[in-house]
Amino acid sequence: MSKESIGFIGTGIMGKPMARNLLRAGYSLTVYSRTKSKARQLLDEGAAWAGSPADVAGDSDVVITCVTDTPDVKGVLLGENGVIETASRGLICVDMSTISPAATKEMGQVLEAKGVTLIDAPISGGETGAVEGRLSIMMGGPEEAVEKVRPIMEVMGRTVIYCGSLGCGQMTKLANQVMVVHTIMSVAEGLAFAEKAGLDLETTLKVTSAGAASSHSLKAIGPKIIAGDFKPAFMVDLQQKDLRLVLEYAEHLKLPLPGVALVHQLFTVLQARDRGRDGTHAMIDVIRQLAK
Amino acid sequence: MSKESIGFIGTGIMGKPMARNLLRAGYSLTVYSRTKSKARQLLDEGAAWAGSPADVAGDSDVVITCVTDTPDVKGVLLGENGVIETASRGLICVDMSTISPAATKEMGQVLEAKGVTLIDAPISGGETGAVEGRLSIMMGGPEEAVEKVRPIMEVMGRTVIYCGSLGCGQMTKLANQVMVVHTIMSVAEGLAFAEKAGLDLETTLKVTSAGAASSHSLKAIGPKIIAGDFKPAFMVDLQQKDLRLVLEYAEHLKLPLPGVALVHQLFTVLQARDRGRDGTHAMIDVIRQLAK
Repeated sequence: MSKESIGFIGTGIMGKPMARNLLRAGYSLTVYSRTKSKARQLLDEGAAWAGSPADVAGDSDVVITCVTDTPDVKGVLLGENGVIETASRGLICVDMSTISPAATKEMGQVLEAKGVTLIDAPISGGETGAVEGRLSIMMGGPEEAVEKVRPIMEVMGRTVIYCGSLGCGQMTKLANQVMVVHTIMSVAEGLAFAEKAGLDLETTLKVTSAGAASSHSLKAIGPKIIAGDFKPAFMVDLQQKDLRLVLEYAEHLKLPLPGVALVHQLFTVLQARDRGRDGTHAMIDVIRQLAK
Repeated sequence: MSKESIGFIGTGIMGKPMARNLLRAGYSLTVYSRTKSKARQLLDEGAAWAGSPADVAGDSDVVITCVTDTPDVKGVLLGENGVIETASRGLICVDMSTISPAATKEMGQVLEAKGVTLIDAPISGGETGAVEGRLSIMMGGPEEAVEKVRPIMEVMGRTVIYCGSLGCGQMTKLANQVMVVHTIMSVAEGLAFAEKAGLDLETTLKVTSAGAASSHSLKAIGPKIIAGDFKPAFMVDLQQKDLRLVLEYAEHLKLPLPGVALVHQLFTVLQARDRGRDGTHAMIDVIRQLAK
């Protein structure tokens, strides 16, 4: 069986290296991006350009979307010149953006009526994970379709996990984000306390990393905080978008999440200070500022 | 040089296995505990009994205290029949309890006037760490005295770290506890969200443990939560004691810690429901209950 033709929509910080890995793995790729210049390198490396999501879908067996938010996915899939306009029966759409689980399920129904299968497959692992093909990919949708695209996913990710029916990928990603932001608070309040107490932060980091307090975040952002480096591994603005999705879906579930709600409010302090494009570990400056 | 004679005060869940490891390493040990029956096994294994902290100190080069809270340490060190009554110049007291950094510094001054050196050396690693001699020990005090007792500490701990002057051990331990409770919230809200969303919790745990959301807590208490096992690795009541110390010292530092304050309040829900002796991961039931 020859390899599927893949359409790739959204060639931003994450999408571009993911698409490149597919090209390198020998897939024929048609790309579309709102800003054509962002796709330039991929075109130089052998991808074909399509003038719209509809044009992408006309040329592809599988269409991957990797854009920012729910309205963006709705636009490229169901909007004017969207995928739905040219999609043939049997097309599989894999949405790798992090968006609303509820909207995902709704879009899945609309596409299903046209014989198109939607899979949600949000990712975790950041730009480095995308470049190195080591993303975690959380997949939801009909299991047969998920298994069909698994080889494609494994080009981009190291951990490709089937989470359940359509929407379960997004819900798993949101559960992941709930956990992540608490570990950021863990490092921010812990190191702010240590600093204010006059402790040596390197020593504190060494001790706490060795035991019950340790977390991926502590090891990843602890050293950056000590170095005063607030370049983003993950931006405050994007984290806030994900927390908005979490809180919206939690409201739909009628589940109060007082911790996440607090963290969401505290990140707003950074946005109010024009630091939305800093890394999420800038949270420590919110705590520091409270004591000034 | 022959090994120091060690006095050990407080033979509870942590103190007993720690004292046993010292006995096994060949130290001669005099023990005192509020409840003599708790020391029974140690006496059978070769420790000597002393009728009071003062009697312990009279027989020892180094006195170790491992009791619950600030007033307990004050009592055994400075109270009636306390260590201070019989302490000779040159005695080193090592307090391995988790107590107030401010009170630690005050007691250090009182003891110093009698020629006695106080070291703070709170621990992390739980009962298992104590039994296996693999505790993390966070030490504060005059560096020379700390180095003198280091071989003794290394019998009980795997990671023995010098954190700075007297009180720095306690402050480091409190910073550690700040970080720990946020990782507990991370697991509690994350898994409560996943559960309410109808996700398979084993799969959620597998995905989240593999990436940016991972923490020691997630790996340690995640499986227990899924199994419905709320036996304590660390009890809510003791966590609350530590958070009270954190918030008191943060107030002394004039540092607001909104996250810790919230977690402290939510743990109070468990205490109000007579679940203070459950493990801290019972926090998930607080979040679950909010949605009922």
